[in-house]
Amino acid sequence: MTERNIRVRPIDRDAVEDEEVEIVERKGLGHPDSICDGIAERVSQALAQAYLDRVGKVLHYNTDETQLVAGTAAPAFGGGEVIEPIYVLIVGRATKEYEGQRIPVDAIALDAARNYLRETLPALDLETDVIVDVKLGEGSGDLQTVFGEEGKAVPMANDTSFGVGHAPLTETETLVHQTEYRLNTEYHDENPALGQDVKVMGKREGDQIDLTVAAALVDEHVPDMDAYKAEVESIREFVADLAAEYTDREVTVHVNTADDYEDGSIYLTTTGTSAEQGDDGSVGRGNRANGLITPNRSMSMEATSGKNPVNHIGKIYNLLSTEIAHDVVHEVDGIRDLRIRLLSQIGRPIDEPHVADAHLVTTDDTDIEDIEDDVRERIDHHLEHVTDITERVIDGELTTF
Amino acid sequence: MTERNIRVRPIDRDAVEDEEVEIVERKGLGHPDSICDGIAERVSQALAQAYLDRVGKVLHYNTDETQLVAGTAAPAFGGGEVIEPIYVLIVGRATKEYEGQRIPVDAIALDAARNYLRETLPALDLETDVIVDVKLGEGSGDLQTVFGEEGKAVPMANDTSFGVGHAPLTETETLVHQTEYRLNTEYHDENPALGQDVKVMGKREGDQIDLTVAAALVDEHVPDMDAYKAEVESIREFVADLAAEYTDREVTVHVNTADDYEDGSIYLTTTGTSAEQGDDGSVGRGNRANGLITPNRSMSMEATSGKNPVNHIGKIYNLLSTEIAHDVVHEVDGIRDLRIRLLSQIGRPIDEPHVADAHLVTTDDTDIEDIEDDVRERIDHHLEHVTDITERVIDGELTTF
Amino acid sequence: MTERNIRVRPIDRDAVEDEEVEIVERKGLGHPDSICDGIAERVSQALAQAYLDRVGKVLHYNTDETQLVAGTAAPAFGGGEVIEPIYVLIVGRATKEYEGQRIPVDAIALDAARNYLRETLPALDLETDVIVDVKLGEGSGDLQTVFGEEGKAVPMANDTSFGVGHAPLTETETLVHQTEYRLNTEYHDENPALGQDVKVMGKREGDQIDLTVAAALVDEHVPDMDAYKAEVESIREFVADLAAEYTDREVTVHVNTADDYEDGSIYLTTTGTSAEQGDDGSVGRGNRANGLITPNRSMSMEATSGKNPVNHIGKIYNLLSTEIAHDVVHEVDGIRDLRIRLLSQIGRPIDEPHVADAHLVTTDDTDIEDIEDDVRERIDHHLEHVTDITERVIDGELTTF
Amino acid sequence: MTERNIRVRPIDRDAVEDEEVEIVERKGLGHPDSICDGIAERVSQALAQAYLDRVGKVLHYNTDETQLVAGTAAPAFGGGEVIEPIYVLIVGRATKEYEGQRIPVDAIALDAARNYLRETLPALDLETDVIVDVKLGEGSGDLQTVFGEEGKAVPMANDTSFGVGHAPLTETETLVHQTEYRLNTEYHDENPALGQDVKVMGKREGDQIDLTVAAALVDEHVPDMDAYKAEVESIREFVADLAAEYTDREVTVHVNTADDYEDGSIYLTTTGTSAEQGDDGSVGRGNRANGLITPNRSMSMEATSGKNPVNHIGKIYNLLSTEIAHDVVHEVDGIRDLRIRLLSQIGRPIDEPHVADAHLVTTDDTDIEDIEDDVRERIDHHLEHVTDITERVIDGELTTF
Repeated sequence: MTERNIRVRPIDRDAVEDEEVEIVERKGLGHPDSICDGIAERVSQALAQAYLDRVGKVLHYNTDETQLVAGTAAPAFGGGEVIEPIYVLIVGRATKEYEGQRIPVDAIALDAARNYLRETLPALDLETDVIVDVKLGEGSGDLQTVFGEEGKAVPMANDTSFGVGHAPLTETETLVHQTEYRLNTEYHDENPALGQDVKVMGKREGDQIDLTVAAALVDEHVPDMDAYKAEVESIREFVADLAAEYTDREVTVHVNTADDYEDGSIYLTTTGTSAEQGDDGSVGRGNRANGLITPNRSMSMEATSGKNPVNHIGKIYNLLSTEIAHDVVHEVDGIRDLRIRLLSQIGRPIDEPHVADAHLVTTDDTDIEDIEDDVRERIDHHLEHVTDITERVIDGELTTF
Repeated sequence: MTERNIRVRPIDRDAVEDEEVEIVERKGLGHPDSICDGIAERVSQALAQAYLDRVGKVLHYNTDETQLVAGTAAPAFGGGEVIEPIYVLIVGRATKEYEGQRIPVDAIALDAARNYLRETLPALDLETDVIVDVKLGEGSGDLQTVFGEEGKAVPMANDTSFGVGHAPLTETETLVHQTEYRLNTEYHDENPALGQDVKVMGKREGDQIDLTVAAALVDEHVPDMDAYKAEVESIREFVADLAAEYTDREVTVHVNTADDYEDGSIYLTTTGTSAEQGDDGSVGRGNRANGLITPNRSMSMEATSGKNPVNHIGKIYNLLSTEIAHDVVHEVDGIRDLRIRLLSQIGRPIDEPHVADAHLVTTDDTDIEDIEDDVRERIDHHLEHVTDITERVIDGELTTF
Repeated sequence: MTERNIRVRPIDRDAVEDEEVEIVERKGLGHPDSICDGIAERVSQALAQAYLDRVGKVLHYNTDETQLVAGTAAPAFGGGEVIEPIYVLIVGRATKEYEGQRIPVDAIALDAARNYLRETLPALDLETDVIVDVKLGEGSGDLQTVFGEEGKAVPMANDTSFGVGHAPLTETETLVHQTEYRLNTEYHDENPALGQDVKVMGKREGDQIDLTVAAALVDEHVPDMDAYKAEVESIREFVADLAAEYTDREVTVHVNTADDYEDGSIYLTTTGTSAEQGDDGSVGRGNRANGLITPNRSMSMEATSGKNPVNHIGKIYNLLSTEIAHDVVHEVDGIRDLRIRLLSQIGRPIDEPHVADAHLVTTDDTDIEDIEDDVRERIDHHLEHVTDITERVIDGELTTF
Repeated sequence: MTERNIRVRPIDRDAVEDEEVEIVERKGLGHPDSICDGIAERVSQALAQAYLDRVGKVLHYNTDETQLVAGTAAPAFGGGEVIEPIYVLIVGRATKEYEGQRIPVDAIALDAARNYLRETLPALDLETDVIVDVKLGEGSGDLQTVFGEEGKAVPMANDTSFGVGHAPLTETETLVHQTEYRLNTEYHDENPALGQDVKVMGKREGDQIDLTVAAALVDEHVPDMDAYKAEVESIREFVADLAAEYTDREVTVHVNTADDYEDGSIYLTTTGTSAEQGDDGSVGRGNRANGLITPNRSMSMEATSGKNPVNHIGKIYNLLSTEIAHDVVHEVDGIRDLRIRLLSQIGRPIDEPHVADAHLVTTDDTDIEDIEDDVRERIDHHLEHVTDITERVIDGELTTF
């Protein structure tokens, strides 16, 4: 095989950790855009698995266009109700017939989406609060792919596309990511009043970090205004404690700052998501593949969720570059900031990108020459095993938003 | 109060039982049109009950327009699957706000429809096989009704409308009705292979009755073609035995006559309804309010299912005239055929129809004069208690299709 | 060929013209149910023609399930507006591919429906006032028909179905039909203020006829309340004059009796149809195949509009029986009331019904024996040419509602 | 008023023009994502204008969620057809009633969207090729805005949001932008065979630029394969000539490189957009506010199209920062690359951002100190007139994608 075109060089900026102002955002699991991302990706996994089970290979599909239309709700202390259900339209392409065998792609998509909602949003009643609809067309017939066939051939890139990954996360990035993650897992486990629509904005100016959390509370578990205030304060304390684990910088935590207790305008929901009232959502409008929105860093516009993980080069390269970045900083010492960029070349196997760039900022005691070979070696290794990404996506091991 | 305009006179035809040719049809519970009727009526009940619970009276609504778009299925011996889900669109009008209180009519309708499907079609998987959507608009604001208010005033007729009821059922009518009913209850309880889409056509020529049953079988419970044939034969025997209970006439029973075993074209379904493949449905296109389609008798075009039982005069009069007819033949001896017709008068209380006609054929030993007063008295009694119909409809005690 | 089973005998009732009470209704072109009937039938014609043009024969389809969801409007003297568009969902089955050739059934249906609306409802703005959507599935693959193939074989009946036709129309029936027809043609040509949603109810008691017209007026052409009153009076006079052409009985004409000038509640619309505000519609819920709803006569429940005219026996027999009835009373003297009933026999050619019944009331000077042969001969003739019905339906020469 | 927080400093990277690799993309007017952006923005303009006309101020709305579901088409030399229409769902929030006055937001949106499609895609037949549907809910009632009221108060920022703009465009950016623009205007005017779905990818490595154009051709104007090849060559020549106007670098132009003449796989369409077959689209997934996708530069994830231009701070700041950047480089000499970033502060007037950053690369002969005051003065001027942006957006003078 040809040698891969891998370049390692210094980045033309400071490490993001050293920039003066840094902004980071994460839309939590229950945010309308994230709901769409999550459904799109779950539908994708279900289709890929169904194709593998039924015809032994993943056929052409893309389900990266779920649209959510917000409902109307009347939340109330102690338990309100949804007035007009949320409407979710699963949109995409999928191969419906293969060698005479019909694949129930609509039924699979519907089932996957409803299961996802059931698992992700426990306060959402699937019988009354949401309508899930499906419009899956068929794509071009010539796009049938070959994953799973003899020898797992590496597919060809069918587009000029671009993926970018970064590591390590800055403290602010880590904080934002962990805040949402831990609120939606360990905190929620003990505090059912916390809904899944947790949006975290981090802003760092020098060494001062502001963490702003907008957290939907679930009315059934909030009997009155005092309880509401107590929940907000409890969240604030949890996040403040959590922050201390990740940084020595000064962190100020704000929770539900748009609340106005005077006029009763608070962030109370029936279902735990703002999709119940006024906030629409769609795929690819929220977090990037690494789970964050980071204006200080290069980002790909590509919507990763819902794309076919066998042949969609944008999805594969975004996930792979993030994987590579993290692996490199884990394996190779002396890197303060690393950006991996993969640019595809139409018609070439996807393990041979047009260029694989590693741009990095080293620590003061490291020269780039010292580590260049190690970095290149790790990148080469990951490119060689590029199809692992596909398998891990299908198995749901990689998150896309 | 004014005396009611009740007329009792001979009918200008023979008793249907004595006509030479008689045709009767019943679309069973799982027929696409019946599914729509059933959803429309269940949604109506749920809305009426919700209004009573929340504001103490039934507000304006009509939900008599559910549309079902058939899906696509791949039934198979031992268990097939739905490929494209059935699409059900609940259509109608409902009051969404009353004195500042919002009523979640969409959520109520969705819940009612899904529950109805779950109860009625056990082989239908609500997670994969059907999409239920809702489009409920608001009607004219001035149509708010007064049911439930002080003294339960009898509402005024708001339309010129017409209801018709017959009794007793002829043997053929009884046979058709009982065949579907008992197949869908006692037979199904023992034989899960029988789906709910049981369509029964009865044709009587003189004393020869042909009963033609089209019964969807559920593939999960039918392992192979021999099992299929056995199920068909079992149904035929059940219906033949059943027929002997209701008539001494000769009855020939045909089951799934369109089957062609040679080319494998049989009535096998995954869900128990033909809605899974190619048969659309809508409200008011199937059975009349008495559960039958009877070309030999006057029928109202009115769709009864889904109409507001408080003020929709067509619904009330169709149900009431059927009730009256059955009650009269039960209470008054000597009637061989009775038709009750109620014609409303706009602007008058609905217990004072423009005219209430009883047309009847008496038995040979009865003169109409002998029973005229008794008939009139029964009719008068029922009209006086007309609002009972409304309550029984809301409670689900009266069937509408 | 076998001799057809044609029976001619007296009817077991009086002529409808001689009954004491008669009720007749017609929902005009712009009524929501009629709009659905019209779209369904126009779509059917377009599909049939497209199949003929493209593959030389009519393939399997049924488009008898259009659903209309009412909009919301704010009519105003001098011109109001539609707030929420009417939603029309075309539902049905159509063959999308034939011998490798794709037929654009969705696009054809959409185009046909929009053209129908444009032609039928001139005050409806297709850019703002209506959304037309399509859900056409594929039916069973084995239902491909053979119309147009060598020798125009008469198709086989695929169902036990029943058609019924009557002639001559009674005076009341004629009046109701002509009132709507002439209002929507000659009157409308001169008076654009009249919308197409003209509903006519005729009630005859003895020799007194009440004609009740509900006519939607178009706000753009009605500058103020005086103009409204003048339009209503103008319609009343036109109908009263018209009535005198058809009957010597006393006719009372009521127009828009539900109006309440005091509180400004009048029948003013922006589009000429009540579908703009609160009145949903669907196929087969309005006029029967002869354009009328006639509780005094046998009616078929069958929705005629939108059905495939090649092989849908219910459609063919309803249209044919009506044709036969009119032809017989035109050609054969001495008939006061005639009912033609055609009952199909599964598996037999449709020109050989199980039974063709002519039930009639003769005039006083005519014996049934005198005309029986003539009647039978006309029926036989029409059955022989049954496929003419199909062609005329496709050409749009026969109305179905 | 307080002094604005404006900072001018060097950027921590090279000018993009000097980077070794540069990637730029533009999705043309007819790309499915751009169609959604265009509809969303046109609907926004129409709503804003309607609010101004009817109630004198812009009320709360956001229409930034249009979803397009691709159709199916059968393009053919000389003219093919659409088989299944494209489905467009307009999604968003809009105030439907204000002080008792109803605003027909659905009808306005429908009209605006259809007009946009008609103007933008001349080969798209609106009667057969597309279904436009609308789901506009109401947002939170407390979000009513104040634009247009006495004194045009500058609104408060209601979110922490971020806008970024760049100037001048690099040669590659200019090339990509101009290629799409001039193909879709002057070239199309002479060559109707060119559809609007023109996607341009520019890749520069050092001084070698590759321009890859994917251009949908319209079958009606392409009689055969030779004509197709000629059209492709004509486009290639036009772009090559055009390129020479903007750069002295070597430019290689590729047009429709995915074509395979052997197996007849070419980029032929009936409507001029790939939305007709297999390519779905949605808002905010394509070009950024400056019309380009530029991975080399900071980009905002914010979808600009369809957002309310009165109070949506992300939209305003993205458009304003782009305006400022272009104005500054126009007015102030010596700037080689300029990035303007505006970060909002919740609760402060939007003309007082939390910070307004100008990061720049000066030309060799310029010191940042020489021009810092001029830059700051221009930024201050634009911020002072921030509401001009709103007006220009409503008037359609600013493009958002």
